[in-house]
Amino acid sequence: MTSAIDHSAVLGEGTTHGEGCVFGAGVRVGKGCRIGHHVVIHPDTVVGDNVRVDDHAVLGKLPMKAANSATTREQQLPPLAVGELSIVGTGVVLYRGASIDAKVLMADLCTVRENVTIGRGTIVGRGVTVENFCTVGRYCKLESECYITAYSTLEDRVFVAPGVVTSNDNFVGRTAERFKHFKGVTVRRGGRIGAGAILLPGITVGEDGLVAAGSLVTRDVPPRTIVRGAPARPWREVPPEQLLENQGWVDA
Amino acid sequence: MTSAIDHSAVLGEGTTHGEGCVFGAGVRVGKGCRIGHHVVIHPDTVVGDNVRVDDHAVLGKLPMKAANSATTREQQLPPLAVGELSIVGTGVVLYRGASIDAKVLMADLCTVRENVTIGRGTIVGRGVTVENFCTVGRYCKLESECYITAYSTLEDRVFVAPGVVTSNDNFVGRTAERFKHFKGVTVRRGGRIGAGAILLPGITVGEDGLVAAGSLVTRDVPPRTIVRGAPARPWREVPPEQLLENQGWVDA
Amino acid sequence: MTSAIDHSAVLGEGTTHGEGCVFGAGVRVGKGCRIGHHVVIHPDTVVGDNVRVDDHAVLGKLPMKAANSATTREQQLPPLAVGELSIVGTGVVLYRGASIDAKVLMADLCTVRENVTIGRGTIVGRGVTVENFCTVGRYCKLESECYITAYSTLEDRVFVAPGVVTSNDNFVGRTAERFKHFKGVTVRRGGRIGAGAILLPGITVGEDGLVAAGSLVTRDVPPRTIVRGAPARPWREVPPEQLLENQGWVDA
Repeated sequence: MTSAIDHSAVLGEGTTHGEGCVFGAGVRVGKGCRIGHHVVIHPDTVVGDNVRVDDHAVLGKLPMKAANSATTREQQLPPLAVGELSIVGTGVVLYRGASIDAKVLMADLCTVRENVTIGRGTIVGRGVTVENFCTVGRYCKLESECYITAYSTLEDRVFVAPGVVTSNDNFVGRTAERFKHFKGVTVRRGGRIGAGAILLPGITVGEDGLVAAGSLVTRDVPPRTIVRGAPARPWREVPPEQLLENQGWVDA
Repeated sequence: MTSAIDHSAVLGEGTTHGEGCVFGAGVRVGKGCRIGHHVVIHPDTVVGDNVRVDDHAVLGKLPMKAANSATTREQQLPPLAVGELSIVGTGVVLYRGASIDAKVLMADLCTVRENVTIGRGTIVGRGVTVENFCTVGRYCKLESECYITAYSTLEDRVFVAPGVVTSNDNFVGRTAERFKHFKGVTVRRGGRIGAGAILLPGITVGEDGLVAAGSLVTRDVPPRTIVRGAPARPWREVPPEQLLENQGWVDA
Repeated sequence: MTSAIDHSAVLGEGTTHGEGCVFGAGVRVGKGCRIGHHVVIHPDTVVGDNVRVDDHAVLGKLPMKAANSATTREQQLPPLAVGELSIVGTGVVLYRGASIDAKVLMADLCTVRENVTIGRGTIVGRGVTVENFCTVGRYCKLESECYITAYSTLEDRVFVAPGVVTSNDNFVGRTAERFKHFKGVTVRRGGRIGAGAILLPGITVGEDGLVAAGSLVTRDVPPRTIVRGAPARPWREVPPEQLLENQGWVDA
């Protein structure tokens, strides 16, 4: 077994790869990358320097168009780009048309769809799905098994705990009207969502707002406020020592 | 690297495949299919015409029998069948003994177990599990990361939102008695389950019934009724414009 | 296509493997194992006799260190060990530094991280994540899609239903203080967690305690007690016929 490298693919100096890899036409991989076994990199994908890609990852996948999908449209997508020093875990699936900044960790079995941007230093946890048409900021943590619905915006330093579910269709799959109203969630800078919380379509979590674990969020969350319950109601202010401005964090 | 094609496997006219594929004995793949890289198709599997199968998918897997599994029994299973114009996503696992109709979309990393039938035009979302002994109708949408427990029945045009959890064991793994009572959920034609809802064992959702997001469903849901809360209680009728009969949908 | 077997890897008598496998340096696989296609076994991994490993599984993966991970530290890890008669499903990812006892079933697409031990006869369900620094006892059932957070302890005969979410950070990603307090969940012998329940950080479920489906557990659960609700409160005693001592189970 060897690897199948298209003659037009370029691998940078010091880059290594394992067994059974596929590098498609026009692929460009930077210097010093470590590519695992059975990694598939589809045509035109651009990978920066010093990126780690683990076994069975698929980069640059073309979207699948179902006969009756509500949100996937055929389109001309730019190539997938993965920034330097990022890590792509085992079995990860990254779509063509996603743009991943530097130092992003994409843990095992996560998926990033087309028309998504992910900012520098963000962690996309194990098994996480970031659906199409999402914007994820810098230094976010999307923890294991959380689900980010299509048409969502997460600003910088957002924290989403394990098992969080978001949604974008108040019409639950009925009426032609719904196509005008698809709306994911918006989480402002430093907003945090606790474990297993559920957010209804179109919800905004304000700056440094916090949703307690297990809440069902049916109304917007005010800035610097903790909400809890089902349906979630304001409970108290975020303690000062937990505010983003008091963490002393600097971008790296 | 090339592919390993058993001499008894038959690939139809115009069908292409990527690197490192495995086609087992007796496999039959129709015409015009596009098979990705590292796809494994186990013996006897039958794939219809114009099916797309993405990288790392596994078709026709034999069940695993754990020493202490409650519901998996050794058995003689018919070969996996996948209908024409279906799409099988990256890393999908389809078991021997499943029967998939035409135009079904199975998104990345979903699993369909043995003794399951899935009807025409249904979408099985990203990461979804359809456990063994389930029947799923036509034109259903099982959205990302929902979980369909064993011994469930979903009729046509059922909608299950992201993160929905179903269950089938009221005895929570204890007593020999429980083996007589395993019962999944039944969702009648056009029934809908909102994001992150949890359904207890044996629940029936009536025709065009709707479970609001985040509900804990402990009693049957009447037809054309919205239930919500934990435990869920009837809230109001499904608005006429959301009824299945008023969508103008025709089978395709 | 053939497989890539390091000259120092040892495969026991009667062990078979499929196409495109990778066996790294120092790998030892016992007798009578059935290894599927495209399985990757990283260096030094030790697999016992009569183990089944399905397609695309990855054994002995090295952890990924994110720039801003809270719990992953660089370390020298012992090789992955998988005990005899265990089953490793399709697409499973097992980390170096995990220790899996005999007769363990790891279903498709589950992950077991570094610094985890899993006891004899336990079932790790489809898509389950067992994060780092966890101890899982013997004859447990971790059902499909449940999530076991880092620093958790599950004793013998624990049952975790589908979709359960656990958490370990009461500070939700803020303050330096939190690093001293990371605490997963502890489930004592025979404890059971119902479908879709959410457990807050540091929760202990007492011996034979039972969390009803959909509960939000904010306080410790007393032994032999059923709790339910959000937040969960004691409801009644576990019926005698469901107590572990009345099951007549013997270790196998």
